[in-house]
Amino acid sequence: MSTAWTSRYALRTKGITSSAIRELLKITQRPGMISFAGGLPAPEVFPVQRFEEACHKVLTQQAASALQYGATEGYEPLRDMIANNMARYGIKAKVENVLITSGSQQALDLIGKLFINAGDRVLVEAPTYLGALQAFNVYGAEYVSVPIDENGLRTDLLEEPLRSGPKFMYVLPNFQNPAGTTLSEGRRHELVLLADKYGIPIIEDDPYGQLRYEGEHLPPLVVLDRENLRRDDGYSIGNVIYLSTFSKTLAPGLRLGWIVAPPEIIGKLAQLKQGADLHTSTFTQFVAYEVARDGFLDKHVKLIRQVYRERRDVMLQALEEFFPPEVTWTHPQGGLFLWVTLPEGLDIQAIFKSALEQNVAFVPGDSFYAKDSREGCRHMRLNFSNATPQQIREGIRRLSAAVKSHLTATTPRAELPLEV
Amino acid sequence: MSTAWTSRYALRTKGITSSAIRELLKITQRPGMISFAGGLPAPEVFPVQRFEEACHKVLTQQAASALQYGATEGYEPLRDMIANNMARYGIKAKVENVLITSGSQQALDLIGKLFINAGDRVLVEAPTYLGALQAFNVYGAEYVSVPIDENGLRTDLLEEPLRSGPKFMYVLPNFQNPAGTTLSEGRRHELVLLADKYGIPIIEDDPYGQLRYEGEHLPPLVVLDRENLRRDDGYSIGNVIYLSTFSKTLAPGLRLGWIVAPPEIIGKLAQLKQGADLHTSTFTQFVAYEVARDGFLDKHVKLIRQVYRERRDVMLQALEEFFPPEVTWTHPQGGLFLWVTLPEGLDIQAIFKSALEQNVAFVPGDSFYAKDSREGCRHMRLNFSNATPQQIREGIRRLSAAVKSHLTATTPRAELPLEV
Repeated sequence: MSTAWTSRYALRTKGITSSAIRELLKITQRPGMISFAGGLPAPEVFPVQRFEEACHKVLTQQAASALQYGATEGYEPLRDMIANNMARYGIKAKVENVLITSGSQQALDLIGKLFINAGDRVLVEAPTYLGALQAFNVYGAEYVSVPIDENGLRTDLLEEPLRSGPKFMYVLPNFQNPAGTTLSEGRRHELVLLADKYGIPIIEDDPYGQLRYEGEHLPPLVVLDRENLRRDDGYSIGNVIYLSTFSKTLAPGLRLGWIVAPPEIIGKLAQLKQGADLHTSTFTQFVAYEVARDGFLDKHVKLIRQVYRERRDVMLQALEEFFPPEVTWTHPQGGLFLWVTLPEGLDIQAIFKSALEQNVAFVPGDSFYAKDSREGCRHMRLNFSNATPQQIREGIRRLSAAVKSHLTATTPRAELPLEV
Repeated sequence: MSTAWTSRYALRTKGITSSAIRELLKITQRPGMISFAGGLPAPEVFPVQRFEEACHKVLTQQAASALQYGATEGYEPLRDMIANNMARYGIKAKVENVLITSGSQQALDLIGKLFINAGDRVLVEAPTYLGALQAFNVYGAEYVSVPIDENGLRTDLLEEPLRSGPKFMYVLPNFQNPAGTTLSEGRRHELVLLADKYGIPIIEDDPYGQLRYEGEHLPPLVVLDRENLRRDDGYSIGNVIYLSTFSKTLAPGLRLGWIVAPPEIIGKLAQLKQGADLHTSTFTQFVAYEVARDGFLDKHVKLIRQVYRERRDVMLQALEEFFPPEVTWTHPQGGLFLWVTLPEGLDIQAIFKSALEQNVAFVPGDSFYAKDSREGCRHMRLNFSNATPQQIREGIRRLSAAVKSHLTATTPRAELPLEV
């Protein structure tokens, strides 16, 4: 009975993939569970008071517009604010370059809709953000995966995959999800030049760019693209579409992201967005604008950096203290995640099960690979933004116990003296 | 330069259609313009005070959840409230039958994604809601159109189109958009039986069902489907997917709609929704729940009915008073729209231009047909919910002048005595 509709009406089954993480989040609601699984911001840093003031102001002064239908492209003062904010990172965008989306996830969906015909190849990092895979899968994407290392995408391995003619490249240069790695400046230049050489557009996904805890800000690909190629016509023919979001700086519950692209692309994406949801909530856009304006967002981001840097450091320290020497991990300069590498031969799903028994959760690495990959089975993604420092320390202690139990278990029994 | 990306990267151009109405809305922002073009609620009826209280309550008591990521299926208390509210219309739904969407438009997009493979036929009313056409076009839908009359879809013409094997039927039984007509009870029974006979699912879109200004509530198709077919297993194998929204009863700026369907379908749509936008804004869901709860929504809908009934009556009276006898129109029992039929041979686009010159706007009928149709060129859709009674009267006076100028203009010159 449960598949009555699917079989009766020949419904789509291919390309529908559920995010392992979102399913996981249900388990992690269990009391006593310490979860490093989701990519959830710390609720302690939500600027609740400021939201209250913003709601009050919007509803007393602008209710007739804020509760009404709005423009598909988004609330103009918000688009304008975003364009101005990005100028500080060297991204020269005007209002007409900005489309407000219902979270960054919708940006990925609209890009999939615009670019991908069934069977088209998409070049992705291995590992990469699994929400992007989920968005692109629906349109029948095939994948070309290029590995990353501590300095991000391996640009030395990029030329052959580019020759295979992918429809676009999807990259997360800053504090990558899941690995926490950052694309080095040298590789950024190489990437942009290669994209231009082969005429392959870059989708630059940058949800965490502002959350840098150490080191210098590196130029976005969208900026290098224009500079390197000496394009003086601003944003009209660049190779790069840039995505970002308020989910990590204000609140994910708003579902507010944005796309920066040439006006031609914004126009097409806006038409697709009309058919997808008419427009993003005017109310949340008005509220976000009132919350973020007058320099509040900048001040608030400083607070978030401080809180998350501490949590990252607590996690790194706990990993050092509790984890066995066979295990390694990345040292992210920002963002929300770090990436743990286990010795070969372990069963990540079995470790995951043991971890849940210990009331600690993470996301097994295999979820982040476009294709089945043995490589994925050696990794765990750990989030350090959501749990408190105390929980992080305790969670890593529990997780180390789960890992260690499997390290011992895999020690070949034959090596034990028979008499033991 | 402006199509540089499209040609360089072979972007999708087929299936991207912009809503004529949404483009129109930009023109109608002009000062002095009286617009009957959009389907906008009256801002005067937005329950602003109640929204203020709801925001305050949500932010002081539940901010950590209301601003955080949430479940793809939606906020459970809101889904539960929707299920309970619908029970009063005989729709037996439980929480697991309800998926919250980012407006009803997203429901149409997700249904298109799930059902339509390029070239699949979709059976639609002629005329029909153009946002549905826009959503389905992207997936490569072809259309079979069945005309409507004052009693809604012509079920006597339905059998042959059903034999052609459409993937589903899309119907608006109550106060149809654009025509304002309501499907009679007899035809509802016929429709449900025919759908069952040919095994064709029905998408029942009901954004206006609660806004009835006269006559008796008629049973939804989803209820007749279960009753007529004596299905005792509740909602598990019905032929009907039911859609509705808070856009016309609370506020469209929230972008909150819902789908009622068997759990199997809800599960698949939720997976597609994950890839599309993760979930609908938790904040707007929490706020809508607090606004609607404790019987407020019912009371508020009564107020809306009163305001819109008056506006409908003012429009009907003004049409009677100002319009020439060759022109006819529907008498909607509810909803937001009425549908004007002009004599044959007039150029609706020319009338539209004249109307804009007179500072009054409507939507030309041809937008609402799946295929190019001469029929569409005889119609205007008029919205009566957004303008005030005074504006409605003045707008219809202006519009009648525009129409009359074309009636005269089409009088063949040859009939004039040469000496005049």
